[in-house]
Amino acid sequence: MSRHVRVVGTGLIGTSLGMALSAAGFHVTLEDPSPTACRLARDLGAGQLATDLDPLGPPEVVVVAAPPDVAAAVVVESLRRWPEAVVTDVASVKQTVLDDVLRSGVDASRYVGSHPMAGRERSGAAAARRDLFDGRAWVVAPHEHSSPEAVRLVREIATVVGSAVRVMPAREHDEAVAAVSHVPQVAASVVASCLRDLPEPAVGLAGQGLRDVTRIAASDPRLWTQILAGNAAAVREVLLHVRAQIDEVVDALGSLTVGEGEGALGALSRMLEAGNLGQARIPGKHGAAPTAYAVVSVLVPDEPGSLARLLTDMGDAGINLEDMHLEHGLGQPFGVAYISVVPAAAEPLAETLTSLGWQLHD
Amino acid sequence: MSRHVRVVGTGLIGTSLGMALSAAGFHVTLEDPSPTACRLARDLGAGQLATDLDPLGPPEVVVVAAPPDVAAAVVVESLRRWPEAVVTDVASVKQTVLDDVLRSGVDASRYVGSHPMAGRERSGAAAARRDLFDGRAWVVAPHEHSSPEAVRLVREIATVVGSAVRVMPAREHDEAVAAVSHVPQVAASVVASCLRDLPEPAVGLAGQGLRDVTRIAASDPRLWTQILAGNAAAVREVLLHVRAQIDEVVDALGSLTVGEGEGALGALSRMLEAGNLGQARIPGKHGAAPTAYAVVSVLVPDEPGSLARLLTDMGDAGINLEDMHLEHGLGQPFGVAYISVVPAAAEPLAETLTSLGWQLHD
Repeated sequence: MSRHVRVVGTGLIGTSLGMALSAAGFHVTLEDPSPTACRLARDLGAGQLATDLDPLGPPEVVVVAAPPDVAAAVVVESLRRWPEAVVTDVASVKQTVLDDVLRSGVDASRYVGSHPMAGRERSGAAAARRDLFDGRAWVVAPHEHSSPEAVRLVREIATVVGSAVRVMPAREHDEAVAAVSHVPQVAASVVASCLRDLPEPAVGLAGQGLRDVTRIAASDPRLWTQILAGNAAAVREVLLHVRAQIDEVVDALGSLTVGEGEGALGALSRMLEAGNLGQARIPGKHGAAPTAYAVVSVLVPDEPGSLARLLTDMGDAGINLEDMHLEHGLGQPFGVAYISVVPAAAEPLAETLTSLGWQLHD
Repeated sequence: MSRHVRVVGTGLIGTSLGMALSAAGFHVTLEDPSPTACRLARDLGAGQLATDLDPLGPPEVVVVAAPPDVAAAVVVESLRRWPEAVVTDVASVKQTVLDDVLRSGVDASRYVGSHPMAGRERSGAAAARRDLFDGRAWVVAPHEHSSPEAVRLVREIATVVGSAVRVMPAREHDEAVAAVSHVPQVAASVVASCLRDLPEPAVGLAGQGLRDVTRIAASDPRLWTQILAGNAAAVREVLLHVRAQIDEVVDALGSLTVGEGEGALGALSRMLEAGNLGQARIPGKHGAAPTAYAVVSVLVPDEPGSLARLLTDMGDAGINLEDMHLEHGLGQPFGVAYISVVPAAAEPLAETLTSLGWQLHD
């Protein structure tokens, strides 16, 4: 007998969650203020349109996937509407939602906030993906009145869709995402905004570094305005640190331009070294250690079928790739495949490929 | 009869260039203050160790690939040492090198500055790659005394290794790279430095966005200290713009935390929208238009050989991929292959794959 989860809000996260839960055998019902968005989610396999007379009765768990600025109100409404259900939300900020829920006077023991660390620079049901949560962190943020049963059910939802659960209080979550998500968003947007009025030949010099730094600058301004506003204090705190460092760099560069610069090179170097140290702490994909995979680079002739041949050769050798990226030179006779494998497989892979005539790179 | 190019400095750029020029049939001779680095470059196929009695006589072109802070001195020395050769350098800043060369009093008509827009977050000969310059922009920056013949030869070097030549004055180059390369580096380093003292559970929430924003924060502090110092005025100018925008965001967040915030949401939204507009101007890989490729996403079962089968099916259908990225969910039964093709090929590809039983994504 399948279990009933109600998803309220069928944007990117709600629809993806519906798809993942449906695939896992849950009975998912969908609602959204926009009937069109809701039907699109249904067509994508996220679940069924909600009705008052669902054969399974009221939901066991309600997931509020509404925009951050209405999440608390929808959580409160849901707690009242379904007096037995556990309610969670997936908003990117947790303390303000919790404060608003507690302030409403509703019995909040059935509420547990959560935040799947999964998103894309695109939004809406059309961008949804069943595997959006695969291997991502999913923060579960109980408050002091959350019942153990409520925490258990929310953890189960996160686990079922493939996420790695991290339990932490709302405040701690908000401070963490200020540094690892919200301030990086501001930095990307601000750096990208400097390109807006640049002459065309200058923009033409853009390389992969700039593309990577600014990729998330393509994110939805409406959503991010709400996120930044909802986590204002914590984001401001980290931004003040960023600004202080930029001030130091500006001062160092200023003293260099007037020919002084005692200590200026040291200041620049310290900033860059601090960046090295911070960057080295970032875990790899799926929470793996930063250097968990070894990369083998192989030249791939630019003709249909050659990459297939490479992968067949790998498969024949019994080597499973963890990740792969292909770089393709414009008008060049070959591309380069960067193949990530577990470290122990790197040398056997390199030897096998070389013996089969593939040309390694690097 | 092959032509003689001398590469002075066998780090990442010099070694890669030697490999590419040797592959193109040039006679490349190498020198470096470090005999070990020089021999490593030779072993990698970058050319031969320089001797005083080269069978081809003095070089036709000298490429100075020394660190930025000694580039000008090595250019001047090279112009004096080889009175017939054209000399170029590949430093990331061009105006200070040019100023120093002109100030030396040497006849600078045989000097033309240049800057291949190619780099990696790794440095040194060991990271060199023959295709480093493939499809990248290569700025050629003549000055008013550069002879047409010198400009022609430097353009030829850039073109032969697969780069797209962009001619612009040194000052214009420096202003451009301040915005598209140097300030993004500072932003990445500063954002990454905020992670240095973060609690472990917080760093564990890092996602792909943070990884992308901070990838280049792993770059060499010694090299980047020189680059930033060498382009101090232009970098400072763009950084002042960045700081002004961060000030606005800090102010907006501050007014929100004290419950006011009139206009604060507007300020946040404007910053994010400006980021959208700037990001949209960045050309795609190899200078292609930002939206030149269409992406088809396909579920790929997580077993050896399945990706090969996918690519064989694509090859059979006569469709050539431009780029591919594979995302692999931890412990999940499938990954997702993101296949970039020319837009006209996207629909036929999707139809073909669907008809063959592949499950599309998105």
